Amino acid sequence: MDETTERRGPTARLLLSAPDRPGLVAAVAEFIYRHGGDVTAADQHTDEEEAMFFQRVEFRLDGFGLSRPELEEAFAQVAVPLDMTWAVRYSDEPRRVAVLVSRQPHCLVDLLGRWYAHELPGQPVLVASNHSDHAGLATSFGLPYHHLPVTKDTRLAQEGQLLELLSGAGVELVVLARYMQILSPQVIDAYPSKVINIHHSFLPAFSGGQPYHQAHARGVKLIGATAHYATAELDQGPIIEQDTARATHRDGVADLARIGRDLETVVLARAVRLHLTDRVLVHGRKTVVF
Amino acid sequence: MDETTERRGPTARLLLSAPDRPGLVAAVAEFIYRHGGDVTAADQHTDEEEAMFFQRVEFRLDGFGLSRPELEEAFAQVAVPLDMTWAVRYSDEPRRVAVLVSRQPHCLVDLLGRWYAHELPGQPVLVASNHSDHAGLATSFGLPYHHLPVTKDTRLAQEGQLLELLSGAGVELVVLARYMQILSPQVIDAYPSKVINIHHSFLPAFSGGQPYHQAHARGVKLIGATAHYATAELDQGPIIEQDTARATHRDGVADLARIGRDLETVVLARAVRLHLTDRVLVHGRKTVVF
Amino acid sequence: MDETTERRGPTARLLLSAPDRPGLVAAVAEFIYRHGGDVTAADQHTDEEEAMFFQRVEFRLDGFGLSRPELEEAFAQVAVPLDMTWAVRYSDEPRRVAVLVSRQPHCLVDLLGRWYAHELPGQPVLVASNHSDHAGLATSFGLPYHHLPVTKDTRLAQEGQLLELLSGAGVELVVLARYMQILSPQVIDAYPSKVINIHHSFLPAFSGGQPYHQAHARGVKLIGATAHYATAELDQGPIIEQDTARATHRDGVADLARIGRDLETVVLARAVRLHLTDRVLVHGRKTVVF
Amino acid sequence: MDETTERRGPTARLLLSAPDRPGLVAAVAEFIYRHGGDVTAADQHTDEEEAMFFQRVEFRLDGFGLSRPELEEAFAQVAVPLDMTWAVRYSDEPRRVAVLVSRQPHCLVDLLGRWYAHELPGQPVLVASNHSDHAGLATSFGLPYHHLPVTKDTRLAQEGQLLELLSGAGVELVVLARYMQILSPQVIDAYPSKVINIHHSFLPAFSGGQPYHQAHARGVKLIGATAHYATAELDQGPIIEQDTARATHRDGVADLARIGRDLETVVLARAVRLHLTDRVLVHGRKTVVF
Repeated sequence: MDETTERRGPTARLLLSAPDRPGLVAAVAEFIYRHGGDVTAADQHTDEEEAMFFQRVEFRLDGFGLSRPELEEAFAQVAVPLDMTWAVRYSDEPRRVAVLVSRQPHCLVDLLGRWYAHELPGQPVLVASNHSDHAGLATSFGLPYHHLPVTKDTRLAQEGQLLELLSGAGVELVVLARYMQILSPQVIDAYPSKVINIHHSFLPAFSGGQPYHQAHARGVKLIGATAHYATAELDQGPIIEQDTARATHRDGVADLARIGRDLETVVLARAVRLHLTDRVLVHGRKTVVF
Repeated sequence: MDETTERRGPTARLLLSAPDRPGLVAAVAEFIYRHGGDVTAADQHTDEEEAMFFQRVEFRLDGFGLSRPELEEAFAQVAVPLDMTWAVRYSDEPRRVAVLVSRQPHCLVDLLGRWYAHELPGQPVLVASNHSDHAGLATSFGLPYHHLPVTKDTRLAQEGQLLELLSGAGVELVVLARYMQILSPQVIDAYPSKVINIHHSFLPAFSGGQPYHQAHARGVKLIGATAHYATAELDQGPIIEQDTARATHRDGVADLARIGRDLETVVLARAVRLHLTDRVLVHGRKTVVF
Repeated sequence: MDETTERRGPTARLLLSAPDRPGLVAAVAEFIYRHGGDVTAADQHTDEEEAMFFQRVEFRLDGFGLSRPELEEAFAQVAVPLDMTWAVRYSDEPRRVAVLVSRQPHCLVDLLGRWYAHELPGQPVLVASNHSDHAGLATSFGLPYHHLPVTKDTRLAQEGQLLELLSGAGVELVVLARYMQILSPQVIDAYPSKVINIHHSFLPAFSGGQPYHQAHARGVKLIGATAHYATAELDQGPIIEQDTARATHRDGVADLARIGRDLETVVLARAVRLHLTDRVLVHGRKTVVF
Repeated sequence: MDETTERRGPTARLLLSAPDRPGLVAAVAEFIYRHGGDVTAADQHTDEEEAMFFQRVEFRLDGFGLSRPELEEAFAQVAVPLDMTWAVRYSDEPRRVAVLVSRQPHCLVDLLGRWYAHELPGQPVLVASNHSDHAGLATSFGLPYHHLPVTKDTRLAQEGQLLELLSGAGVELVVLARYMQILSPQVIDAYPSKVINIHHSFLPAFSGGQPYHQAHARGVKLIGATAHYATAELDQGPIIEQDTARATHRDGVADLARIGRDLETVVLARAVRLHLTDRVLVHGRKTVVF
């Protein structure tokens, strides 16, 4: 049960996009009002260049006149004539999350700590890695740890195992917590806008390998981190969250990496929270983050 | 003409608050939709403790079915039964602004520069000061400068002159750009939530005099600035905007003041912009900033 | 072994303060040079109001002509005539750290995670708490957990146990990771400038109890956290590090607490790192942080 | 007279770099001590990859035993055997500054305002532009405004005029305050590490034209600004200062440009201040900023 649910009872979160036209806001507001819904949060955005409308509405289910299946059926009646793409999620149905990691544990241990402290919604169900290093850590937080070694030649087979694992555990979100393998389209396509990666630079600066080396060579005064949905094109997926931190001439590559690890954990945790509270809508190469 | 108007044609900005109840959002959305309005931005907030609802809706006037007086008359029909407190402003009717200053010019010169560069909405109409120092500056930016000297004994009379001046010039917003005199209730009450002050600390820390001396004595690692509406109680008015900047042991009082001046100008300019784009609603001692 | 040592071999860190006078820098530089030391970092500060000089110099021990005891004996010859207060620490002698916690685990789990990921110097040796909640967590990170329940009437006895524990484990730094008990002078005085507390506000704003409630009531636009050395006077000790984060009208007390927990963990971790890399000098109520 | 001078009397600022070797710090400290200098600030940095040492030392001239010419002659004796590259500047000898601008005035008006408010060291001596727009502004701040129109075909001639102007006015620093012309090597080479440019992105992301359009297309969540020394290679010069600000899906290109203008003014002003307080050392493609 997440923090919203604790405070307000269960809520429904309606996320929608549609070609912009007058009456969209009124149609949604009227639907919720008619069935006795109590709106607790509403955000909307019109992308004028693309003539697209985006909305997130959250409303209490206590007192709402329809059951969950009825809600979805009834809203479809509203959505279809207005060409809406939409989804509804419920605050008391936590998403099942898998974390993938390689050798560097800072993002993994940060996420596990946040779940332990009830700082993050969602329900972690497994940790998988191409290395065995952090099996003990995962287990001590009560999670199964799957060691899936990989070489160039075994990638497809290893990803097959991974996909089976994810599907078997009913995983709905995959978090790449410094997983240093490039996932092939078979994995990416199975989880569209459901794989979050953390890249250790302020994209699009320093995409690709060794961004801290690149940053050091250029003498930048800030370093960054970027959380984005993984897509087939490396480091090009829709950006969810970014941040930067100060660096100086004193900071060698190892210092940049250390400062950067703090950024990475924070930016990744924010992105995971935004995703799991249904605040991110993807449109083309970009996101709307409410 | 402000930047919104330039891009979208004139818009109306409806700001309202009301005791929370179902149907508020639907009523407003339906009103705008019925008259052919095209919503370009909408924000809402429910204060659950106070059971109050707040909303800001902006919609295009091109194509809207009612004239401005008709709009206001028609919306009153919606608002009264729902106990709304509301106001409507138009993006092509810039507010008339007076700036008050004492000896330190950094906020004044920053605001004048922003208006010169078309970075700030509103229309500056006069500068007033208890000192004569910056008459040349104001004049070079095309503004009348009123020197209103004041002593303890002449405060009420001086404020009388000031009030006459403001009223004669049709001033709708008074910006205290490091005006180092405390305004008495006769001025404050004449411009409720229309006098913006910049205090050079992170309120409520270091209220009152010499905040940088206080900050230095305490050895803080950040200093702050706070823009708030002036009320009868010194430094206690509703906060519009705040920010902080790093300080170190190297910074003496003069350094804190220098770092702080940069903060003050930025925080004050942001608050003035928020006010003039109709993004601030006052409720009791607090603000809702959309 | 900390990260500096890994990269450069062991270093000595000389921290000193003295009444300001010409020749201090030259005397220290000459001492290190004479014995073949290779300076890797040097920082100095003169507090002109207090006429005090502060310095931190770090130099490689590989190639230095004196053993550690000889170094200390020889430097005393330099220090005494110049009225220096000084200490020398070695990068390969990690400090022994105890963490105290109550029910909220976010700071504890963050620190443990950082040690796990080798992100923090020092060597954690025990966790103590007035509650039993986090025994499993500590144990899973390989640390003993001491449950020391306390009531108003048993405080002195409980602190006696605590002191015995700390002393028995050779603890050199005590971190109050949201330990919600006020330590009496018997503990504070036993660890002067060696107890770091995290307060969940931007001190001196909102000292004392329930700072997030206070912040919410005042309607601030930023919240803060402050790490400071604990002293006999509550929330008045020398500040090591502070930071702030944005809050809006949308954030209720529970939201402020959530945003604040992220700040608290980061600010506390930074302060612990600064202390353990010998970057903090205390002078009166203030710190010099190199 | 700058703020340091006001408070401490005139100071000398010694900036030096040298191949790293033991004894550099001691040699400089001993030189200043021997002649009765009182060090008010000292910073040093060793670039371990390049084995280069950098230092900035500031000391009071009141009480120093040598005149300015004697100081320079005597220090050369210290510097030559240690292969130092060095310069000495005096806090009471303000640098002469030219500002170049095109049509967008935000950086120009910000700089002029800072000089008016005594917030910036240096002495502005002229404004030059390829447009006539801001002649009135410059004149109202007491500065000559030189309108130097340029076309593709007249660039070299126009730059010739510019060079004559700069040299005639004894200009020591050229600030490109959104001057939208690319300077050819004849200008750049005449003022090595003495031309500061502001680029409206977080370099190396979005170098070249229309960075806000590029940022909008990529959907970044932060935008940036970069102040750097101009070199022959476009947008590749040594970075002095950078900063970023939040952007959201709501921000169109015009919004990004507006948010960015605030960043540009602040980042450029900081870089100019750093340069004019002799805090920047250039080494290859990078800077050391003390």
